[in-house]
Amino acid sequence: MSKKPLSIASLSGFPEWLPEQQIVEDQFIQRIRDYYELAGFTALRSRSVEPLDVLLTKGETDKEIYVLKRIHDDDASPAKFGLHFDLTVPFARFVTEREQALVFPLKRYQIQSAWRGERPQEGRYREFIQADADVVCRGQLPLQYDIDLPGMLIDILDGFPIPPVCVRVNNRKVMDGFFQALEIEDSTSTMRLVDKLPKLGREKTQQLLEEQIGADKARKVLKLCQIHSQDTSFVDQVKDLGVTSPVLEEGLEELSAVIAGNQHKRSGAICADLSIARGFDYYTGTVYEGFMEGFEHIGAICSGGRYNDLVAQSSQGKLSLPGIGVSIGVTRILGILMGRGLLRASRSTPSCVLVALNDLESQGDAIAVATFLRSRRIPCEVFDEPKKFGEQIRYANRKGIPYVWFYNADEQGNHQVRNLSAGDQQQVDLATWTPDPSLLHPTVVRVDASEG
Amino acid sequence: MSKKPLSIASLSGFPEWLPEQQIVEDQFIQRIRDYYELAGFTALRSRSVEPLDVLLTKGETDKEIYVLKRIHDDDASPAKFGLHFDLTVPFARFVTEREQALVFPLKRYQIQSAWRGERPQEGRYREFIQADADVVCRGQLPLQYDIDLPGMLIDILDGFPIPPVCVRVNNRKVMDGFFQALEIEDSTSTMRLVDKLPKLGREKTQQLLEEQIGADKARKVLKLCQIHSQDTSFVDQVKDLGVTSPVLEEGLEELSAVIAGNQHKRSGAICADLSIARGFDYYTGTVYEGFMEGFEHIGAICSGGRYNDLVAQSSQGKLSLPGIGVSIGVTRILGILMGRGLLRASRSTPSCVLVALNDLESQGDAIAVATFLRSRRIPCEVFDEPKKFGEQIRYANRKGIPYVWFYNADEQGNHQVRNLSAGDQQQVDLATWTPDPSLLHPTVVRVDASEG
Repeated sequence: MSKKPLSIASLSGFPEWLPEQQIVEDQFIQRIRDYYELAGFTALRSRSVEPLDVLLTKGETDKEIYVLKRIHDDDASPAKFGLHFDLTVPFARFVTEREQALVFPLKRYQIQSAWRGERPQEGRYREFIQADADVVCRGQLPLQYDIDLPGMLIDILDGFPIPPVCVRVNNRKVMDGFFQALEIEDSTSTMRLVDKLPKLGREKTQQLLEEQIGADKARKVLKLCQIHSQDTSFVDQVKDLGVTSPVLEEGLEELSAVIAGNQHKRSGAICADLSIARGFDYYTGTVYEGFMEGFEHIGAICSGGRYNDLVAQSSQGKLSLPGIGVSIGVTRILGILMGRGLLRASRSTPSCVLVALNDLESQGDAIAVATFLRSRRIPCEVFDEPKKFGEQIRYANRKGIPYVWFYNADEQGNHQVRNLSAGDQQQVDLATWTPDPSLLHPTVVRVDASEG
Repeated sequence: MSKKPLSIASLSGFPEWLPEQQIVEDQFIQRIRDYYELAGFTALRSRSVEPLDVLLTKGETDKEIYVLKRIHDDDASPAKFGLHFDLTVPFARFVTEREQALVFPLKRYQIQSAWRGERPQEGRYREFIQADADVVCRGQLPLQYDIDLPGMLIDILDGFPIPPVCVRVNNRKVMDGFFQALEIEDSTSTMRLVDKLPKLGREKTQQLLEEQIGADKARKVLKLCQIHSQDTSFVDQVKDLGVTSPVLEEGLEELSAVIAGNQHKRSGAICADLSIARGFDYYTGTVYEGFMEGFEHIGAICSGGRYNDLVAQSSQGKLSLPGIGVSIGVTRILGILMGRGLLRASRSTPSCVLVALNDLESQGDAIAVATFLRSRRIPCEVFDEPKKFGEQIRYANRKGIPYVWFYNADEQGNHQVRNLSAGDQQQVDLATWTPDPSLLHPTVVRVDASEG
């Protein structure tokens, strides 16, 4: 199998994977599903299209929408529908429409493609898969969810062979309360500036902040943003700034609970980072952004937060449903790693066994072997022509199939199995033979950068 | 849980499911994946969009394509991309582009949405999921695949609680050879007429056929189309018509092999049906159409066939890759059955256990129970407020969660579990308790029409 980093896009921004890469994506998605379901989240799948008025309520992103028309529609008639650009907007619309048929608290996950007409670059695609999990309540949403969700993210990502992820947590109330205490009037634009800190750099941000709120406040805001800690020591650091307000206190308490509640996870898996703002307006409490070690510059590979009202994001604001959610950027993570040739599957097929075909007369025997192995949940295939065994073995090697099965291997009609990587061939009993468990299914392999 | 048939589309032709329905779709897709992978098919996922010239090579269907533009693109500039309307065209394009990186015979499956701007009706949607499996070779494609693929379809569909499916098989060579022997010149338009037989009815088809090829030939063609059998007796019925040609003989032989090779399946699961034509031009041998008992009028719910050259369907015809494939209409099958309220999941959540919350002080104990159950792969959730147990149990009942867990249930701090359907509550040991295996995950339930 080629170890060369593979070009992923014949159409810029629309990644596609080869078989040995698609297996990685599928296993990653399966792992996410498993964990979401173990935690009681139920699957939803929304249609890919939304009426344009639903998509446009979220303001800022309208420029990135793909609109849809039937090919023979009148050119002059305006498009009415577009592809969704995230999974939150369709979820909000879905809940608005189906509220009567749903039981709350609703814990749903959704793993689907979304589309944005942005300029493609590493980690940014026009078609990409997101894996969202949200809890939505009627009434109060307990703080425990703020603690549980990043814990779930960490459990999912820690078990997959990707670089370690750090989930950086903040709370909108910390920033809002801090701004209130400083009597900053336009807290939204100040927060937007802070959000751009990683892009603009410290100097430029400071300059813009000073223009907006004056040098003294700008200095304090930047000091706040520099605070981060893996434990709850950030609280004292904030207090040392000598700024306080009830909202700030509330935010610090909530943030402490999230950090303290995840201290039993891997060291470095979670930290408080008071610069995390999240660009969107609808977050009202806890916010998350996760970064992959060594790839921080590419941006958050998972994110989320708490919102006071899911449905305020849809066009019909009749209900009030507070919620909290996380989203894993499946394509972003894999696009970075597979695009650089750092991750692949151990083989390019699910087949664990290739049943070699002796001759056409005994094809029925070959099929019987395969049928029996499949009944024991061992993926396998029968070679489709009675070619020389050398050629059949070469095919298995090229796909990475670990075992080749020979029926009627001797005059007594015994079965033999060759383990291609070990190079040994043994007589076996069809009824009881089992593959090495580590070879039953393809596994995901981290490729050393030096190998690439 | 409501047993009322649920309206599935707030946007006509774009079905969406409630949680207890989405679980059905997911389990159906998982079953298809499982069987495809056991047979050595590897997953591919193509991007959702194709250049318009790729989509338009397949002629007939251009009117149904959704084209895509960025919302701020110039209105006058023509769209360059469209959403794919099936999974074969993107697969052909993918193989053309990546041929050097792929190993043949390539066995791939692809389970994805496709889009068609058609008028929606029962069983016909604008966005729908197809589950395709194809084998593509360099050189000759052995006939064994023609036998294996419908067998795989039958195994997949027989184990799912849907009405029995009959896969009707024909071979293009039978019809072509028959037409040749009758010296019918424009065999393509004759075949298209035959393909419309179920829609037009016998009389209308006969009339159109007579206009095209004359009364005598029309009579013979219609006689051919009436031939069907569950075993290979169709061969003699064809021979009785007194028409023969080498191509016809070859077709009868191949068709016999497919029918004979699947005689060990459920009686009625497969039959030869000499009226099956499949509308598309590219099939060259075996063709399949599967129908669900009682829903034959809605059309084929799975289909497929053999083609001489996959890549001829894409825009760059450099390679010659014969192939054979099948496609399961996931949304068509479930749209029919769930749209009529005939199928649902046993519950609306993956959670097998609800851990009841005693009080906030002991929330850590509740979470520890859940964490332990999850480590043993038992999906569960903790109720998020210390409400009265009655209320917590009501929540479990509404979602169909089968067990409610009580920690510190007595003064010794023992655990108790209530089985909500059985109504009994027992003291249990956290370390060893296991749910009834039939209750671990939601199951798919056939709803009696009389209940609906």
